[in-house]
Amino acid sequence: MGEAFFTSTEASKITGCSRRQLQYWRRQGVVVPTVNPGGKGRNVYYSESDLLILAVMEYLLSIGLNFDTSLTALNILMTKNLFLSAKSWTKDQTRLMFFLSLDNEEVRLENFNVELAKQKLEEGYPVIPFCCDRIYDKLQSNLKYFHQGQSDISCRENN
Amino acid sequence: MGEAFFTSTEASKITGCSRRQLQYWRRQGVVVPTVNPGGKGRNVYYSESDLLILAVMEYLLSIGLNFDTSLTALNILMTKNLFLSAKSWTKDQTRLMFFLSLDNEEVRLENFNVELAKQKLEEGYPVIPFCCDRIYDKLQSNLKYFHQGQSDISCRENN
Repeated sequence: MGEAFFTSTEASKITGCSRRQLQYWRRQGVVVPTVNPGGKGRNVYYSESDLLILAVMEYLLSIGLNFDTSLTALNILMTKNLFLSAKSWTKDQTRLMFFLSLDNEEVRLENFNVELAKQKLEEGYPVIPFCCDRIYDKLQSNLKYFHQGQSDISCRENN
Repeated sequence: MGEAFFTSTEASKITGCSRRQLQYWRRQGVVVPTVNPGGKGRNVYYSESDLLILAVMEYLLSIGLNFDTSLTALNILMTKNLFLSAKSWTKDQTRLMFFLSLDNEEVRLENFNVELAKQKLEEGYPVIPFCCDRIYDKLQSNLKYFHQGQSDISCRENN
């Protein structure tokens, strides 16, 4: 089976991002679909890796972070190539934490370490745990649910 | 000396909030100036307690939280009357922490407790330390600086 690609509507259903968000992020260059990246609504297709990036962005926004901070955190994760190697993550790579600075200027990523987290909290810094595997597993579960829905539809069409 | 009141421009300089934010928050009923709360730009005056609320809102936004989450956190603090009693805070009241939920639906406030924080981080919840006294002290320092500036201007005007 070749790699699957998803329309904006499908990507929105699978990741929980709204179509408006997808459109805005395309324009801003935040998450660009692999197929026809410069295209509009109906002509673009997201790969499974794109969906993972969307799912991470959706997660960061859903916990209450603003757009700029979520984007900074996403870019740090992208720089570390964490998304490309989802299937070969080691335990250290899946449990991470972000420290937010107190002036919105810096976001730091570290491996999850409860002693360092404690120290940072004592100093007044917000600590955001980030579990790559949870987001990956949730996406896989949504994808499975989506494909089941697709095959249900195709079965109905065949009857 | 009677209670001091501050124009929007002064409140903006002292708290670091932009005038646009003040205007938006007035319209939304988030932080309403004590004098002429329904008025526009030049006719409204903020009390020192209003400034503290502005400073808290500015702080919550500055660490990277979005507007809705910051507002929820602010409202929780307001419900607990923490702002009215700034001068009589006990140590327990000044060191707090927020837990953010993973679906943007709940924000919880607790006294700062490192063991509880550790447990929540292990479970994947973001933890935001909140030190009332730091925000209060920073505001007092900004107010002092502002009043000094004012008296410098008044000295110059008298010369």
